[in-house]
Formats: sequence, structure tokens, C-alpha cells
Amino acid sequence: MNNQTNNTNNNKAIKTAIQPTRQEDYAKWYQEVIVASDLADNSDVRGCMVIKPWGYAIWEAIQQDLDRRFKATGHVNAYFPLLIPLSYLEKEAEHVEGFAKECAVVTHHKLTTKDGKLVPDGELSEPLIIRPTSETIIGAMYSKWVKSYRDLPILINQWANVMRWEMRTRMFLRTSEFLWQEGHTAHSTPDEAMAETLTMLDVYEDFAENVLAIPVIKGEKPCFERFPGAVNTFTIEAMMQDCKALQAGTSHFLGQNFAKASEIKFLDKDGEQKYAWTTSWGVSTRLIGGVIMTHSDDNGLICPPKIAPQQIVIIPIYHNDTDKEHVIQYCDKIHAEVSEFIYNKNPVRVHIDNRDIRSGEKSWQWIKKGVPIRVEIGMRDINQDILCVSLRHEDVKIKHNIKKDEFIANAVSVLDGIQRQIFEKAKAFRDNNIVDIDDITKFNEFFNDELNQDRGFVNAYAVNDVIIEEFIKPLKVTARCIPLNQTNADGVCIFTGKKVTQKMIFARSY
Amino acid sequence: MNNQTNNTNNNKAIKTAIQPTRQEDYAKWYQEVIVASDLADNSDVRGCMVIKPWGYAIWEAIQQDLDRRFKATGHVNAYFPLLIPLSYLEKEAEHVEGFAKECAVVTHHKLTTKDGKLVPDGELSEPLIIRPTSETIIGAMYSKWVKSYRDLPILINQWANVMRWEMRTRMFLRTSEFLWQEGHTAHSTPDEAMAETLTMLDVYEDFAENVLAIPVIKGEKPCFERFPGAVNTFTIEAMMQDCKALQAGTSHFLGQNFAKASEIKFLDKDGEQKYAWTTSWGVSTRLIGGVIMTHSDDNGLICPPKIAPQQIVIIPIYHNDTDKEHVIQYCDKIHAEVSEFIYNKNPVRVHIDNRDIRSGEKSWQWIKKGVPIRVEIGMRDINQDILCVSLRHEDVKIKHNIKKDEFIANAVSVLDGIQRQIFEKAKAFRDNNIVDIDDITKFNEFFNDELNQDRGFVNAYAVNDVIIEEFIKPLKVTARCIPLNQTNADGVCIFTGKKVTQKMIFARSY
Repeated sequence: MNNQTNNTNNNKAIKTAIQPTRQEDYAKWYQEVIVASDLADNSDVRGCMVIKPWGYAIWEAIQQDLDRRFKATGHVNAYFPLLIPLSYLEKEAEHVEGFAKECAVVTHHKLTTKDGKLVPDGELSEPLIIRPTSETIIGAMYSKWVKSYRDLPILINQWANVMRWEMRTRMFLRTSEFLWQEGHTAHSTPDEAMAETLTMLDVYEDFAENVLAIPVIKGEKPCFERFPGAVNTFTIEAMMQDCKALQAGTSHFLGQNFAKASEIKFLDKDGEQKYAWTTSWGVSTRLIGGVIMTHSDDNGLICPPKIAPQQIVIIPIYHNDTDKEHVIQYCDKIHAEVSEFIYNKNPVRVHIDNRDIRSGEKSWQWIKKGVPIRVEIGMRDINQDILCVSLRHEDVKIKHNIKKDEFIANAVSVLDGIQRQIFEKAKAFRDNNIVDIDDITKFNEFFNDELNQDRGFVNAYAVNDVIIEEFIKPLKVTARCIPLNQTNADGVCIFTGKKVTQKMIFARSY
Repeated sequence: MNNQTNNTNNNKAIKTAIQPTRQEDYAKWYQEVIVASDLADNSDVRGCMVIKPWGYAIWEAIQQDLDRRFKATGHVNAYFPLLIPLSYLEKEAEHVEGFAKECAVVTHHKLTTKDGKLVPDGELSEPLIIRPTSETIIGAMYSKWVKSYRDLPILINQWANVMRWEMRTRMFLRTSEFLWQEGHTAHSTPDEAMAETLTMLDVYEDFAENVLAIPVIKGEKPCFERFPGAVNTFTIEAMMQDCKALQAGTSHFLGQNFAKASEIKFLDKDGEQKYAWTTSWGVSTRLIGGVIMTHSDDNGLICPPKIAPQQIVIIPIYHNDTDKEHVIQYCDKIHAEVSEFIYNKNPVRVHIDNRDIRSGEKSWQWIKKGVPIRVEIGMRDINQDILCVSLRHEDVKIKHNIKKDEFIANAVSVLDGIQRQIFEKAKAFRDNNIVDIDDITKFNEFFNDELNQDRGFVNAYAVNDVIIEEFIKPLKVTARCIPLNQTNADGVCIFTGKKVTQKMIFARSY
């Protein structure tokens, strides 16, 4: 697999590491990037993926950064049961409606051999479902823990696996089991709960933009796209390179719906028994899918420095054992110096690849895995006191010859520059692909596959009512969000002609 | 709940924060410590517990320290599916035998409403079980990933939840769902796999003794106590304060059993197809139960400094608003200075408790939660430049008046001293309660409830054969392990009279 060439000097098709290219077949390209970068693998278990070490290390970096943000905003972690009694789910009508069709149901608690075959045995008196989300099971505990306004707020987050039985799965984006975090908070006033909901949306926005380098639009979901049981759902929406939208995180104001369902009541200062106001908010391993589709190119993953499992890979080059020893010693010293530096609150992650395989093969592996900086070091470089440096987000042929000390001194600022540049690139792409549309004909043309291949986001006046689904569903378009902080004047809904005060974002989506 | 007195000058019974005391009812005391220290709570879901923030923070400290050790020994993390097809389990005969009786079985993938009631629907063609452990599902992936000796070793760890349907549960020690880590490695030679098995046992021993302050005996499990499917199981065994044994961690040499079951084959250097040699090893949230039962006293938890969610709690004492502002400013400065120090690779965890409740109530809450160092600061202390310091592992009445600068300068060494002292105390207790016994009559007397209440561990020559179970089972005793590195001469099995070369540890156990 080392036959990639990248020759722009003639008209032959450029052979890229990932086949097909994004242009040729985006969906297939996505799957191939995951394989080539060794992020994940399909398992034999329907809809369940295996997150391989490279992919899991990205998740660990995401977890660590987010966890720090959650704690900085006053939250603590806890752990609640995986299994939820059916009776809990039934307490909130919309909630059960939303999740009943995709629940893994546990009905037995042992296996027995019958006619030489293992079969379920020990039927449960009440079936249990594997949590698709934990509002009901956590709510049941909060109702035990909360007695007085003094017990509020409760600000808890959980890192966990959840299960939603999906019929069509796609690695990271939609799998039956996935990993996520779910924050669940309870408050004594609606204002405090709403403030929490929006604070966590801000945390997600800042994290997406500054850590994942994914620009997002912060908004409220249209009423017909809310989380089942929520009063308001807020979202951060990202644009992938095929111009489809990805919902990257959500924060829900649950009002008193779940507090009523779970009986979370408290004695308030005024001596009255009241239901608490609750929120929930979550992001998942889906973010890794978003990272892949925002930044990667036809040679594989481009990993934002802040979450890259290795930020710098050093490839020693030698042709005999004397050189080998010398070169590796030299690499070790650079490794030691660079990994003393702190970037994003962690030591810079540097790796020396001294496997016994050809250096060209090594380079291509790290290209496909998306490592931000590659450094090749041979005897000639050592003698000239320079390093041969390649940056993953640049054209694959570009190599920089940099003085060794200069490279070391600037390593952190180069990482930071890459982080900023890939964000700016993604942001420019996103901004170039949002169009304002003010009549339904143009809207229909924009999303007509025969007239327009180059679909992006549409920003249009629209009424916040399920009625608009009849206009957009036939186009396979969804209403993504009503952006917050709009400066738009009042306008007219392009579908219904009704007067409205806000625009809405429309797109095809994952 | 602030009515504890601790008066040793008269003959009245001392009222302790935990009722009953260890002496009065050890099992009940254990449950009460968990409640009083706010570590966990029972859920309505059979056998499943909720790990509350204080307990989960201990688990996070455990995870962080262990994870660093796993990575330092060359391991990486990954994530495998929660659900395992029955057909996987069936591949290893002993394994299925060992786990079939306690499996949560998923049989349906949705719910539907029938006669106004939610019922399981969408029956699966093959039932799935929730992982009780992951050898089979991980083995299936390794068989895909391993082709050549170049692909070995695979050194992967997973942090996950697992489920074993237990009929009698006890928080942390035995619950249907628990959190753990499971390492799964594959090697090209048996020697390398055995070396891995023992390396990880050493990691566990060092972690238990130096982080949890729990002295452990490292040994091999008797052949009749092995993990289902293992060739050898190694264990670290700890003694609780009631002299019962707790298996605190295990490391398994699986030989080629699971490689054959899962078809993990590789082309070796010599051109031959061979089965890999695998290992697995794990510790779980059960360790928290071990921490509670090793160190705690009749006033609640005593948490080893290295895993304490807060290592130092500062309690400001004031009687008016002018004092309050002054005292809290003073506390803030100490907080800032002490949390600059690094202990066990993290900043010292200091918390100022400025809640509006009485300081006596605060103190007792932190005593019950096991915080190693409490510091009370009032105006008089400030004027005298001293701090009133209490150490959790000492008698509750002891207070040290320490110069402020001295306290700050010594904070880390005091934490380290506490860590060492509680380990030494536990070790002395353990060593005082191990007896060498060389005949069966004394063995029977030792474990006879009417003759001896003060049971500990017995160290005795015994044959490594299931035959000895008929002697020990009636006494409710289990064979814990054959300690490694024995210096014992040859001897005679106290049960069978057979010549043996090693002693074995016997005890009642959790």
C-alpha cells in the first residue's frame, strides 16, 4: 500500500492514499479513512463497532478536555445503572414514545442448555432495557436525594455507554452502542435550569471550535426536533465537507417534565413543596465522526493537534547500524526536549517510530493516521543541523527544512498554528456554503438533486411549527436549528407566509 | 447527627459516628460507612448500585493511577461491544459453564404497547448477553487482526461496565453491574504471555500496597479456583479488618485455550501457523470495598491520601461577617499555596468548606467521608499564626497546633506519612492474623466458630487438588492462594498426608 504518488505536474489522475476520493464517493471515502487510519472496526455484533486504540486515544483526549470543563463549571461525576425498568420509561409519555422502537430488552438472567443448545432461562418478572439515555433512572435517584432547596442544585455528569437499536449504522455517526457523557442537573428555579442549559451549550461550542477545530452554529432545535420529553433542546450544528449537517451536541431544558415523572420534589424557602427543574446535555463518540468529516482529505485523517494521540512523529532514517545508533540517539534527545513542553495542559505527545520497516511506509501510515507533524531525521540532516518537517494539513509534497533548535523552540506554536489554520479553513468552507434564501422556489431548486449538486446550509425565515415538515421532507431536508443571537429583522416564513421573527437553518444531515 | 462524643475518661460506652461499630456488627457497619461517607446508594434495579460523586471520585483516582501504570507497561486502551452473541460464549466450554448461570440476556430490540402495557417486541434471531467479561468478544476481533508474528504482541486494556447476575449483592463487593478494567493480551510464545501475566500481577500488587495502602499476598489460585477457561490464575489477596480475605485483583494465563476457541492464529517466523498465547487481568470497583474494610473505623471512612477526592479540607470558623471575610481570605491564600504542590503526580486536592452550617457538623461530615487532613481556622488561630490540624487516622480528639508556614511546607510529607502509616497499620494487623498450622485438628479448631472468634488466615501445607474442598467447605473456608516466592521447605499436606512443596493460604472470604 505504498504506491501513492502525488504528481501535480501532469494530467494523470492523482493517486491518493484513500480510494475512492471525497469527490468520487463521500460515504465510501469516510469508511475508508476509518480503516486506513485504524480508528475503528466493525464487530460481528449487529450495529456495534470496536473502537481501536488510535480511535480510543482520540476519545480519551476528548474526555479529558471536556471533563476538565465540566468540573470547572461545578459538576461532579457519578455512575448510574445500565439497566432501566420498563416502568421507569413509561413515566414520561413522550420519552417512551421516542425510545421504545429502539430498545435492547433484557428478559432473562441466565442461560441453560436444552437439547445441546444454550437458551435463555430465568425470566425476569419485569423486563429491563439497556439505557438509551438516563433521565428516568437518574431522576428516580434524585427523587430520593432531594428533600429541600438546600439539596439543590445537583450538578452531575456520567461517562457511560448507551444503546439505541439502529437499523442503519455507520461507524461513529450512528451505532447501536456508543460512548458518551450525559449531564443531568436539577435546580430550584426555571431560570437557573435555563442558565445551566445554555452554559453547557457554550461549553460544547467552545470545545468544538477550540479543541476539535469544528466551527458550529449554536441554536435551538425547532419544536418538532426536540429531545423526547424536553421543553427546549439546544444544539451545536456543524457542516461536514459534503455540506451535510451534523448535530454535534445537545443541551436540553427539561422544565418540570421529568421531575414530575420521577417525583423530584423539594421543600422551597417559602415552605412550599415544588417540583425541581431539570436539564440534560450530552456529546458522544459521534464527535469523532465529525472530526473525520470536517478535516480529513484524500490521504486520510487530519487530526486536530489538541486531540491527536501523537502530535509529532519522528522517523529516523539510516542505512547501516552505526548510523542507526547515532540517528536514534539524536531523535531521543529531540523527543526528550519537545515532550517537556506543555500544550493544552499536557506534555507534547511525541513518538519515535523506529520499527524495522521502510521509512516511506512509515510516513504514509502516519499521514493516514493524521499526525499533525512528521519529522524525518537522517545523517545528512544531523550534519547540517536541520530537520525535514512535514505538516499533515499541507500538501503532502511540501517539506520544510528547519534548524533543529528552531523546530524545538517553536514546536508548541506550530501545533497551535495548525490547530488554528484547520479551524479557519473549516470555517471558511462552512461560511461559503451557507446561503440566505427568501422564497420557496429557490429553496426547492437549491435542494433539487438535478439542479444543484453543491448543496449547503440554507438560512431562511421559517415558522417554528411541524407544518413545515411537509415542505422539507420530500426534499430529504431537515430543519437544523434556530440560531441564537440572531440580528435578523422580522420576516415572512418562506413556506407558510406567516410573520416570524427568526431565521432557521436547513440542510441534509447525518 | 452531631451528637458524637468520644469520652475515654469514664466507663460509659463511647458513642461513635457509625452505629453499629465494627465489633458489634461488621457487615452492618460496612453498609453504614457507605451511607455515612456518601459513597454509594442502592438503586431500584435488582443488584445494581449507584456510585455517588464521592465514591466515583475515588474510582477516578484509581483509574488515573492504574491507567498510567498500564501505559507505562506498553498497553493502550480500546473499546469492545457490550453485547456478546451466545455462539461466542459457547466456544470455550469451561468459560460458558462458569458464566451461564449469571448472564443478563437481551432477547428483543424494541418495545410495543399491548393492552395498554409496554411489552418486549422484535425478537432477536440470536440472543445476546451483556458481557460478564470480554475474552470471547475481544478474541473474535484479535482473530481478525492477527495474521503474522509481526502483529504480536497485542497489549490492550478496556475500561468498562460488566454484568454478572448476582443473587446476593453487597455494595462495591458484589453487585450485578460493576465497573472494571480488563486487560487482554496476545503473544507469540507462552513465556512472553506468562511474563505478561506476572508483570500485571506485580502492577496490581504495587498499586494495592502503594496507592490503596492495602497489603496483599501475591499468589497463584488453587487449580479449583481458577478463572473459567484459564490455565493459571494469579491473585492478590487482602485481609479485611474482620480477618476475612478479599480477592483484590486477578491476572490469568490463558494458554492457547481462548486462542483456539476464537481462532487467533498467526504465521510464525518459522513459517508455521500457530495459535497465540493470551492473558487477561482485571480489577474492579470492588477495590473501593477493600479500601473501606481495610482502613475505616467506627467514625467512618479513612481514605488513603493518594485516592482521597479531597486530601485537605479547610474549615473556616467565624462568628460575624467581618471575621468571615477575613478568615475566608486567609483560607484562600493557604488553599492557593498548598494546591501548588504536587503529590502522586497531581496537585494537592484542597477544599475550603464555607457552607453556612455549623463547623462541628462540617467536621463530622468530613470525618465520616475520610478526608486525611482537616484544618480549622478561626480569628484566634490567625492572630497566633497557627492552624488547628486534625489527622483522620488518629484518634478523633487529637488536634495539632501547627505554625501556618510549617503546615504549608510539610503538607505533602504529612500526606505521605499518613499514606505510609495506614499501610503499616494494616500490614501489622494482617501479619498478626496469619498463623502457620501443621495439622488438621488445629485447622478445624481454628475455623470452629465456637472455639475461635478471632479467625485470620491460615498458612498450611496443602495439596493443589480439588480434593481438599471436602475438608474446608464444611468450615465455610476457601483456599485463597499458593503464595509466590515461598521459602518453605517440603512438607506434608495437612488434609491428605501427601508430600507437597508449597503452603497455601486459607480463610473465610468475601
